[in-house]
Amino acid sequence: MSDTKFPPADDLNSRWNRLQELLMKEGADACLVASSVNIYYLTGIVFNGFFYLPVLGDPVYFVRRPEDMQHPLVMPIRKAEDIPGLLLKNNYKIPERVLLEADQMTYSEYVRLQAVFPDSETGNLTPLLRRQRMIKTPWEIEQLRYSGKIHVEVYSRVKACYRQGMTDVELQSNVEREMRLAGSIGLFRSFGSNMDIYMGSMLSGNNAEVPSPFDFALGGAGVHPSLPIGSDGSVLRAGTSLMVDMAGNYTAYITDMTRVFSVGKLPEKAYQAHRVSIDMHDWLFENAKPGTSCADIYNHTLQMAENAGLSGCFMGTKQQAKFVGHGVGIEVNELPVLMGRSKDLLQQGMTFAFEPKFVLSGVGAVGIENTYLVTGDGIEKMTIFEENIIEL
Amino acid sequence: MSDTKFPPADDLNSRWNRLQELLMKEGADACLVASSVNIYYLTGIVFNGFFYLPVLGDPVYFVRRPEDMQHPLVMPIRKAEDIPGLLLKNNYKIPERVLLEADQMTYSEYVRLQAVFPDSETGNLTPLLRRQRMIKTPWEIEQLRYSGKIHVEVYSRVKACYRQGMTDVELQSNVEREMRLAGSIGLFRSFGSNMDIYMGSMLSGNNAEVPSPFDFALGGAGVHPSLPIGSDGSVLRAGTSLMVDMAGNYTAYITDMTRVFSVGKLPEKAYQAHRVSIDMHDWLFENAKPGTSCADIYNHTLQMAENAGLSGCFMGTKQQAKFVGHGVGIEVNELPVLMGRSKDLLQQGMTFAFEPKFVLSGVGAVGIENTYLVTGDGIEKMTIFEENIIEL
Repeated sequence: MSDTKFPPADDLNSRWNRLQELLMKEGADACLVASSVNIYYLTGIVFNGFFYLPVLGDPVYFVRRPEDMQHPLVMPIRKAEDIPGLLLKNNYKIPERVLLEADQMTYSEYVRLQAVFPDSETGNLTPLLRRQRMIKTPWEIEQLRYSGKIHVEVYSRVKACYRQGMTDVELQSNVEREMRLAGSIGLFRSFGSNMDIYMGSMLSGNNAEVPSPFDFALGGAGVHPSLPIGSDGSVLRAGTSLMVDMAGNYTAYITDMTRVFSVGKLPEKAYQAHRVSIDMHDWLFENAKPGTSCADIYNHTLQMAENAGLSGCFMGTKQQAKFVGHGVGIEVNELPVLMGRSKDLLQQGMTFAFEPKFVLSGVGAVGIENTYLVTGDGIEKMTIFEENIIEL
Repeated sequence: MSDTKFPPADDLNSRWNRLQELLMKEGADACLVASSVNIYYLTGIVFNGFFYLPVLGDPVYFVRRPEDMQHPLVMPIRKAEDIPGLLLKNNYKIPERVLLEADQMTYSEYVRLQAVFPDSETGNLTPLLRRQRMIKTPWEIEQLRYSGKIHVEVYSRVKACYRQGMTDVELQSNVEREMRLAGSIGLFRSFGSNMDIYMGSMLSGNNAEVPSPFDFALGGAGVHPSLPIGSDGSVLRAGTSLMVDMAGNYTAYITDMTRVFSVGKLPEKAYQAHRVSIDMHDWLFENAKPGTSCADIYNHTLQMAENAGLSGCFMGTKQQAKFVGHGVGIEVNELPVLMGRSKDLLQQGMTFAFEPKFVLSGVGAVGIENTYLVTGDGIEKMTIFEENIIEL
């Protein structure tokens, strides 16, 4: 566990101030936040209820549960309909325009809140907060650093978790145990409804080629048709690769890191393709800085794959992901997205994963993923660990 | 893994026919399903896209990903906006009234679909499907039986996972490994946004009293403020109980089962309270059958707690859950809910968990949970395992 489990007051205050600036710019009087991730972002804790922030003044924690929550900003509620009365009673105005999480709340929840504020206009808060959360505060960066440190420690134990003749699921269950003992919170938070996953993914041999319905870089058949992602229970065979992409969820902030292990030696083409991925990281490390275009990173990476004659197996074979990286934070798929149609430029304080991967039929997946922090004049690697293919 | 990973055609057909009857009753021409759980329920697989069912005729699988999906009912799409054109091209009518999952889709997704069908009225599909899924088909019951069987096997290994001086997280990580090796799919699906959890919960000693923001029967502090539920890393101490409530997710259908372990002997009041919970199960087993009111079960259970002088610690102390059971299936919190204001009667084919629990300050949680199937003339226990407190 990190030394500092809770964000300091000035760090939280800076988030509230920044959000108030964004509300002002949007012509909104207030926002009402209901999702666990955004409540956590704005309070450092998770409660059942709503975080209310007026464009000027102090926030309110409208809390349904825990019922006994002690905090100076708490106003206990039983239901959303209690909010307007409590606002008026405490000298807050009813907002004329209030932003709600339209990309996170269900239609029914949103419509219910619209009825709670019948005379207010509503708008979408989700994109504003997604963009705000893209730039990490100093405390958030500390959390990611800590996650990255433990992430590396756990990966250093993967080899010891392996026994010859094991299945991918057997190895993964050993690594999951190491993760839990190292403080993994278990839950792997993601944005959107199309990211079902559990602790991360291990892909062995041809399972790396199996297309998935989900929005991850690679797929895998999974152990059951109801969760078609990741390891499928096949035995780890000599001459195949094992791609390990397990979560770095050792704080609320998730680092993302992929490394490749091999059972015995792999065909030479696997080492060559893996080298191309490392070259892409080296290129990124030398060139990326505030102002670099995310689309340019994607396009340059694609060009490098093409130059190496590997575009047909870049980011999959049967189905190819159309991105090479993504922001990371409380959720594993934050902004920016490193893809061709991104309009984002790198900015200081962004943390993102870069994951150029190749899938070779008959061998498996190769390539690495690291999490980077954008600094004042470049990027810093947050997941420092052996990058070559590691023989099990 | 169960022998029969995929539902047989007649079982799926019966679900489509039943849903078509419900659409007819609702005056709807069609429904469009987007959530993973309902797509899985209606197809036996998971894809990214939409399941479309007209009130008469065959369904369509509108599939975005996997891109190469082979199935006679598939029509590939790139986006929701492709659907009306494909319907017309394939001699389907544009529905006048189409039901969408208003309690599951985000506001933005729902509004986007409304725009895809600009001349259609929309309505809420979620409650219809929740009620339909409440009554399990023969294949679904088989899946739950299989999950229950493995659930019991894993619980029989809890004692062997224990070593003196361990923390709750250490023991839990061992049990999670056993679960994975036994085929747990990992993901623990639930309905609604307020059920963050990971593989299940172990509550030791006074951690069982800590109120949680989530909608589970009991709470626990968790290992991190961003996920305040379950085990908190405390050492398992002599004279305290350990409540084990880990998921039975060995198929897509989850059984729910709680058992209590003790470190050494517990104070006599713990065995007495535990006995009251078992008595409640015995009462339920003797009395519950099709037609029994869920509210009556709740009220009778509450009365038994009161008669035993234990109402102050029934279903928590600082925060008390207002239900004693819930349906189980693809999600862990299906209908019916065994609570005072429920209007549901038990019906043949329902599967539900019954979990009367007590929390004793200084000792921990006691009481058991079983999953039951409602048969033609009673209920059948699906989780048969030692019910007394088991000394570790």
